[in-house]
Amino acid sequence: MNVVILAAGMGKRMQSALPKVLHPLAGKPLLSHVIDTARRLAPSRLCVIYGHGGAAVLKLLEKQNEGQAAPIAAALQEQQLGTGHAVMQAVPVLDESVPTLILYGDVPLTSAASLQRLVDAAGGDKLAILTVVQADPFGLGRIVRENGAIVRIVEEKDASEAERAIGEINSGIMVAPTAQLKKWLAGLSNQNAQGEYYLTDIVAQAVADGVAVVSAQPAAEWEVAGVNSKVQLAQLERIHQGNIAHALLEQGVTLMDPARIDVRGELVCGRDVTIDVGCVFEGRVVLADGVSVGAHSVIVNASVAAGVKIKPFCHIEDAVVGAASVIGPYARLRPGTVLDEDVHIGNFVEIKNSQIAAHSKANHLAYVGDATVGSRVNIGAGTITCNYDGVNKFRTVIEDDAFIGSDSQLIAPVTVGKGATLGAGTSLSQDAPAGKLTISRSRQITIEAWERPVKVKK
Amino acid sequence: MNVVILAAGMGKRMQSALPKVLHPLAGKPLLSHVIDTARRLAPSRLCVIYGHGGAAVLKLLEKQNEGQAAPIAAALQEQQLGTGHAVMQAVPVLDESVPTLILYGDVPLTSAASLQRLVDAAGGDKLAILTVVQADPFGLGRIVRENGAIVRIVEEKDASEAERAIGEINSGIMVAPTAQLKKWLAGLSNQNAQGEYYLTDIVAQAVADGVAVVSAQPAAEWEVAGVNSKVQLAQLERIHQGNIAHALLEQGVTLMDPARIDVRGELVCGRDVTIDVGCVFEGRVVLADGVSVGAHSVIVNASVAAGVKIKPFCHIEDAVVGAASVIGPYARLRPGTVLDEDVHIGNFVEIKNSQIAAHSKANHLAYVGDATVGSRVNIGAGTITCNYDGVNKFRTVIEDDAFIGSDSQLIAPVTVGKGATLGAGTSLSQDAPAGKLTISRSRQITIEAWERPVKVKK
Amino acid sequence: MNVVILAAGMGKRMQSALPKVLHPLAGKPLLSHVIDTARRLAPSRLCVIYGHGGAAVLKLLEKQNEGQAAPIAAALQEQQLGTGHAVMQAVPVLDESVPTLILYGDVPLTSAASLQRLVDAAGGDKLAILTVVQADPFGLGRIVRENGAIVRIVEEKDASEAERAIGEINSGIMVAPTAQLKKWLAGLSNQNAQGEYYLTDIVAQAVADGVAVVSAQPAAEWEVAGVNSKVQLAQLERIHQGNIAHALLEQGVTLMDPARIDVRGELVCGRDVTIDVGCVFEGRVVLADGVSVGAHSVIVNASVAAGVKIKPFCHIEDAVVGAASVIGPYARLRPGTVLDEDVHIGNFVEIKNSQIAAHSKANHLAYVGDATVGSRVNIGAGTITCNYDGVNKFRTVIEDDAFIGSDSQLIAPVTVGKGATLGAGTSLSQDAPAGKLTISRSRQITIEAWERPVKVKK
Repeated sequence: MNVVILAAGMGKRMQSALPKVLHPLAGKPLLSHVIDTARRLAPSRLCVIYGHGGAAVLKLLEKQNEGQAAPIAAALQEQQLGTGHAVMQAVPVLDESVPTLILYGDVPLTSAASLQRLVDAAGGDKLAILTVVQADPFGLGRIVRENGAIVRIVEEKDASEAERAIGEINSGIMVAPTAQLKKWLAGLSNQNAQGEYYLTDIVAQAVADGVAVVSAQPAAEWEVAGVNSKVQLAQLERIHQGNIAHALLEQGVTLMDPARIDVRGELVCGRDVTIDVGCVFEGRVVLADGVSVGAHSVIVNASVAAGVKIKPFCHIEDAVVGAASVIGPYARLRPGTVLDEDVHIGNFVEIKNSQIAAHSKANHLAYVGDATVGSRVNIGAGTITCNYDGVNKFRTVIEDDAFIGSDSQLIAPVTVGKGATLGAGTSLSQDAPAGKLTISRSRQITIEAWERPVKVKK
Repeated sequence: MNVVILAAGMGKRMQSALPKVLHPLAGKPLLSHVIDTARRLAPSRLCVIYGHGGAAVLKLLEKQNEGQAAPIAAALQEQQLGTGHAVMQAVPVLDESVPTLILYGDVPLTSAASLQRLVDAAGGDKLAILTVVQADPFGLGRIVRENGAIVRIVEEKDASEAERAIGEINSGIMVAPTAQLKKWLAGLSNQNAQGEYYLTDIVAQAVADGVAVVSAQPAAEWEVAGVNSKVQLAQLERIHQGNIAHALLEQGVTLMDPARIDVRGELVCGRDVTIDVGCVFEGRVVLADGVSVGAHSVIVNASVAAGVKIKPFCHIEDAVVGAASVIGPYARLRPGTVLDEDVHIGNFVEIKNSQIAAHSKANHLAYVGDATVGSRVNIGAGTITCNYDGVNKFRTVIEDDAFIGSDSQLIAPVTVGKGATLGAGTSLSQDAPAGKLTISRSRQITIEAWERPVKVKK
Repeated sequence: MNVVILAAGMGKRMQSALPKVLHPLAGKPLLSHVIDTARRLAPSRLCVIYGHGGAAVLKLLEKQNEGQAAPIAAALQEQQLGTGHAVMQAVPVLDESVPTLILYGDVPLTSAASLQRLVDAAGGDKLAILTVVQADPFGLGRIVRENGAIVRIVEEKDASEAERAIGEINSGIMVAPTAQLKKWLAGLSNQNAQGEYYLTDIVAQAVADGVAVVSAQPAAEWEVAGVNSKVQLAQLERIHQGNIAHALLEQGVTLMDPARIDVRGELVCGRDVTIDVGCVFEGRVVLADGVSVGAHSVIVNASVAAGVKIKPFCHIEDAVVGAASVIGPYARLRPGTVLDEDVHIGNFVEIKNSQIAAHSKANHLAYVGDATVGSRVNIGAGTITCNYDGVNKFRTVIEDDAFIGSDSQLIAPVTVGKGATLGAGTSLSQDAPAGKLTISRSRQITIEAWERPVKVKK
């Protein structure tokens, strides 16, 4: 099968500098949704018609082609002269021996199953249209049938009163036998009010040619909903998120509120996972068996092992969390964080580009960056790894069983030896030997004669 | 009255290791909702039929029995041979002199008022069924009436077209005269496709015996909704939360969004309480007159006195907050926190197991743990109580009117005397005398010859 | 035109110490919504009838009058003897040469456009009523028409069955020719069950006087919805927030969930602004082109320049954020914060009353208060400006290119010179010279004989 995706439109109503088809839905460009769905049908040729914002669209296609055996062909539609004109640009790349499926870069949620039904309906020799019955079909092209057979599509403005009462509308998605499609495209006229070549007009040609025009229906109306404005984008975003939430529930995930979870990427959940309200997941996130995620957490590209408890208000990005760890509330795990099992990261603690081995804890107000931390280490409140000298970054090593006193600064590069203890408030600029107490502390003195400041008159 | 609660089912569709009736709704196991409702009817005997996950269910019953005069009887249903079979297990504990109400451990939201109406309808000698009229009764047992009287319940698969059109369905909840119930149970047959004993079949026996079959209706359809999947659990959770929100509004609480509050336990509110979006309450929380709770706060088992302002992103657990205090944003009050009136706890501050007297402040980035803090104390930014030496925890005492300079470490056990001042950056390892300045500080020096680090080539 | 706003009611069902009309909707008192709408019609006289909570209402009016050429007249309704009685109190201030529009202080969302249509319908000599057709008109005054003309308003209790079937109801909002209005008011009787003077009764007098009674309709039913309870207040809040969200979407703003944004004031957005879930905006907030606001952020009275990225969980109040800055997550910008372009403020950082020049960074756990910070400054993790001595506040100056080592305390008043470096853990009590390293640090020592604490038996 050939697939042609129309993606040249400007999307003026989006009121954005970004081409319409590149606006993200669930974190992924609209066009990528359509391409990914198309690929599930394993087309022999896949051609994207681009126009507005062409450079950005081509860049996306390049990215979509990474690691793909069959690259996407891109055909430029320089002038936007209608949907028929758009499809004409694909003609050179179409394989006549197989039918052609026409999709739209701004209709992101059509399921592969619905498209497959349409393709099956078309067979090798019929024109198949994806149609849907709408309660309010106003403004949309109606499917006119005679004795059940589709005989034409009539636009709102040309429809008789009886035709306007028809609820079945044309989604625009269709499958055509490719040789005939080429002929029909060549026969399109732009002698109409808009001066455009309408793809819809091929239906009349098919009927005239005696080619059967058949239809298939999607499982839900939103499968054929297009995005022309931010209002519509937000509507589809919520429908899509609702679908994702429903699938998670069906799979056994406990969601405290299915209307308050956002998944922008892939969320893989084990058994007995619980997700509280207001959580956002981006990229690929894996939550293993028994993980609970507290309210209002944001998790991006992370792997969370079994039994981890994430408390509210956590922000986790490009991180690995080991089994049975306890994270948060208000913990931030930045890229490069790798926690082994039973690690505790508490409130107002930031971890960056660091490995922390099993049973270690950093429970309060700390910054651990570019560090390698052993097992059973206790990092006291207020500890800071001074990993940056203004131009270079250095690593801190804290070996097993070390105890870092509160408010210490570990001035990297520096190593705290196995079982070493740092006194509270230590500025550690040289390595601390294993098993001993290292400290840098001024004598505590009391100023007997001291008097409290008084309020200065201004 | 006897109450029998069926709670032996596995709940395979929940896809969980937890027995179905133990899944929490609003933070409380489904079964506990049913038990608590049943107890409001003051039954003389209360019997729970358990089976799958028996040990865990028994543990819950033990907990439910704490402090209760009348303990719950538990009867094991070893094999799951149908609802009739389940009720048979309760026969030995039923008091024949009073009727028996049959409830379901996975139908959590039936109101005591609805059940009372059902009990009243049953009187001492009638079989009473809680029925509900549903727009889409598909799959449910229909209530067949003749001249208004219930003559039988017909299941979907056995229903005629006319019967399938009946909207009134059997909730399964019923009240029966106990002696007859025993007889009818004994007369049940498992000669059916599933090989199970169906409780519903007692209706036919009642009719045959000339016992009147009557009905009562719940106030809302969700009162008889059961939980068989996480989808249904989430639906009932939101209905229940909506009901709680509505009750709070009716009582005069201002909710910025009734769809974005979660109460998992008991939320007691005074007059003129305002709760912003995204807040979660767990356990017993008391908010006195004039309290405002900022957006996205999580409050667990806490008592908040009049006029307290809680700013956004607070996390409060097992804590007491005194009148007119100001908390947050981003304040974390951990278990054992007791704040007196007009205490200010600001951003990125963690308080644990500490008492703080009136008019004291810890406004920025601090950890106060295991401390006793007097009145009018100012705890500077970055202050840390070093309460833990790696194996032991010690207390810090800060007396009235003390001023703790920023970034100090109070190495417990240690006392800061009344009116004492600590200089910024003090590591306090011995007591600071009252009224004086105590400090531990190295001389500030400037390295004249120093040169900035340069970027290291890698 | 004269406008009279009825605002004397107690609002007992609100269950609040606050007079009903002062309860906020979208952060603004109900009465202020009505006054602001009324002013858009440029009335020559605007009179508010007050009663319950009079002092508080008068205080609001004073505030509403600030900077206004035409002050609002306030008329006291000492006893609440009905809506007709309320309007009587305004009689002395009404200009007879123009018609009078009657509004309600607890009906906040009527649009100026709808009121203008009503005023236009009234012309100079007709009585015009704002009516609305409701699916469930139960309890409301029905509009009785004969041959299309309004002939009377009939209350629920007096309505015939045919009249009860009427869906068109009286909103209470009306425009009357002023001279006649005065006459009709004088003719009102309180001979009814409640012993009150009903404004509605003027309709019968108008008909009797041969004055045409006409109507206009609002664009939506909620335009005439009143607030009598917190339930209704919450409903209107959500409708209003939904309207605001829709307007933002129409304007091209990307909202991840239109049901999860709260705007309590004015939110001005440039092009390509994206707002994630759970954000709250208060006061006047300006988000310039390309700004993105992360999930669960709270922004109050702030100006955010182009290209700024605000990460999740930020709290920004009375602050200015320069172009291309990166804020958060968990950053708190307090009043008086002014950030120049490309400033980075990271997690658990609090900025207060400080100016920070371009390209400077404070990325981790810091408190910067009362400070003037130059360009390209790096403020290390855990840095604290000690701006408060217990009674006075002082300023910290950090000049361009300074590097503040982690965990430093800057004891204000103090200046860090251009290009100066502070070592980690410095307690800076005197100025740090430009270009040099300043440090206060004790020698690091290791206690060879030291042994770890052992668990104390209790």
